[in-house]
Amino acid sequence: MDLVDVIGQIGRVDRRAMREAESRQGRLTKPPGSLGRLEGLSVQMAGIFGSKRPIIRGKALIVAAADHGVVAQNVTAYPQAVTAQMVLNFLEGGAAVNVMARKAGVDLVIVDAGVVAPLPTHPGLRVLGVGGGTSDITQGPAMTREQAQTCVLAGIRLALEAAEKGADIIGGGDMGIGNTTASSAIVSALTGKTARETTGRGTGRTDRQMDLKVQVVQRALELNRPDPGDGLDVLAKVGGFEIGVLAGVILGGAMARRVVILDGFISGAAGLIARAMCLQVRDYMVASHLSAEGGHRVVLSHLGLEPLLDLGMRLGEGTGAVLAMGLVEAAAACLAEMATFEGARVSNKEGNGEGKEAC
Amino acid sequence: MDLVDVIGQIGRVDRRAMREAESRQGRLTKPPGSLGRLEGLSVQMAGIFGSKRPIIRGKALIVAAADHGVVAQNVTAYPQAVTAQMVLNFLEGGAAVNVMARKAGVDLVIVDAGVVAPLPTHPGLRVLGVGGGTSDITQGPAMTREQAQTCVLAGIRLALEAAEKGADIIGGGDMGIGNTTASSAIVSALTGKTARETTGRGTGRTDRQMDLKVQVVQRALELNRPDPGDGLDVLAKVGGFEIGVLAGVILGGAMARRVVILDGFISGAAGLIARAMCLQVRDYMVASHLSAEGGHRVVLSHLGLEPLLDLGMRLGEGTGAVLAMGLVEAAAACLAEMATFEGARVSNKEGNGEGKEAC
Repeated sequence: MDLVDVIGQIGRVDRRAMREAESRQGRLTKPPGSLGRLEGLSVQMAGIFGSKRPIIRGKALIVAAADHGVVAQNVTAYPQAVTAQMVLNFLEGGAAVNVMARKAGVDLVIVDAGVVAPLPTHPGLRVLGVGGGTSDITQGPAMTREQAQTCVLAGIRLALEAAEKGADIIGGGDMGIGNTTASSAIVSALTGKTARETTGRGTGRTDRQMDLKVQVVQRALELNRPDPGDGLDVLAKVGGFEIGVLAGVILGGAMARRVVILDGFISGAAGLIARAMCLQVRDYMVASHLSAEGGHRVVLSHLGLEPLLDLGMRLGEGTGAVLAMGLVEAAAACLAEMATFEGARVSNKEGNGEGKEAC
Repeated sequence: MDLVDVIGQIGRVDRRAMREAESRQGRLTKPPGSLGRLEGLSVQMAGIFGSKRPIIRGKALIVAAADHGVVAQNVTAYPQAVTAQMVLNFLEGGAAVNVMARKAGVDLVIVDAGVVAPLPTHPGLRVLGVGGGTSDITQGPAMTREQAQTCVLAGIRLALEAAEKGADIIGGGDMGIGNTTASSAIVSALTGKTARETTGRGTGRTDRQMDLKVQVVQRALELNRPDPGDGLDVLAKVGGFEIGVLAGVILGGAMARRVVILDGFISGAAGLIARAMCLQVRDYMVASHLSAEGGHRVVLSHLGLEPLLDLGMRLGEGTGAVLAMGLVEAAAACLAEMATFEGARVSNKEGNGEGKEAC
């Protein structure tokens, strides 16, 4: 599979199906506009699936984990060992994303995209084998361009596989101690915002720790000079293996014409990389939530996406994506399954067809 | 069943279970606080159920429909016949709330709380038989105090029945052409806000139509002088049959120690009535969403509730409540089912136990 070929296969959304969906929305048994953002979301899905009655059969979340050499710079509060420990927790079903995915009927795929500590062989674990942790981005590039490409291609394959198995909504989740630092560097590189604007405080970080983290991001950018016109270069210079996989999941989801749901800050950084590689991938994206992580607003505003949820979450793992999948599903189902005024013999309002308040 | 007896049986939430739940939240495999508002929600549920591991078995929504004599004042854009037509649509499964409830696994109970147009006998329709539509509140009280009590008691019975059948989250939804006008009058009566502040514009209403609606609410309040210290009086003077049923659903849900989920503006007006009858019912309430209907902010701020969703919806029917049930369920499940740091052998962060960012 060649990356340039894949990207060339990502098509445009179907504008005719979107117009038909908009017209159908106006005939459903409800005051026009009364389902708020769910209506626009349903029209987007009509465009993605090429049908005015979008159907969601299955939902999948690909959770990619990897380590980051930049932890040597003392930018994290948890030790690096936690990445591997959390992968085991994912495999045993004890993490937040497992619990939420079970409740929501979402298939989970767990990927070791480059965890440092050894992990046991497990039937539920996909192993990428690209390397054990990135290099410290304050000392040089995170990875080679070849490694970056391997990660993205792996993500594309995982998304195509999930689509093949029946997933119509595909999300990505992350685990990687140190990956907010890498993500801040990516977001700065691709949006032109300063490290101060893209680096999150989180709770419990003192001003001094924050200053250190901002400096680390600045140094990584100055040393590596990632090219904002080249998503793969940004990924290789200051990214992470799991972030590359997540960028691939987004590209693969769009290639398969599936709804691609973003999680929080790290997932958003992957979204910026995917968009840098292919502009129209943006039309397949849905922003699940606004993370409490500082730089996430910058990401969403750059992508031109409005989050569905704003619950002060900042966990990653794909938890925001899974939570929002139910809303996306409801939006599609209302467009596909609701009765029309004519069909249900419900009187439409007197007047000119403009929206009104709910009774 | 006597209303005063019922209200006396609504207990306080379990503070000890809430403290235990808070402590358990801090031991779960995630940075403290990283699940944002889901954490507080889970602690509230621990208090309601009296267990630090709250379990949601089933979910139910009671949709009550009734007509409003105030439509004679030309305050609505849809004809009164739509109330009955939408009840038929509910029974046939074609409305937005049907579609969403099917997707979310929510049991629906449809109640004719006083619809004017004749409805056929249907096994899925509960008929209250209190009357066909309220009287015009600009000419006198909406209903007698006895009718108001009958509606509330019916709602309590429906909630107890849903709880008996295994619902741990219970919501209410409304249908009734003219019921935003009645709800504005209720909200003004119970919050002291002016009709201008509690009356929504909706889309497509001209300034003149809005002025008329505000005047109608003002006249209803001036003529009937509802007593803000007496929830039943407010319901009888300016309310609606379905709003009385919804207030009863809230009281009955609290009596059964279930999570009571509010929908939008009409459901919120019912919430204000329920709270006027019993202060501690507030601790059982969850606000599902912020409606686009103008006065809803006033309601939520008076109840001291923060909505989970803000999607610009304004449909009623319980659609917001059903959408948010998945979030409530996820919050409970994370607290009940996630692994702890000790249990999963995940290293906790170095430091003093304060929150940190999600790495």
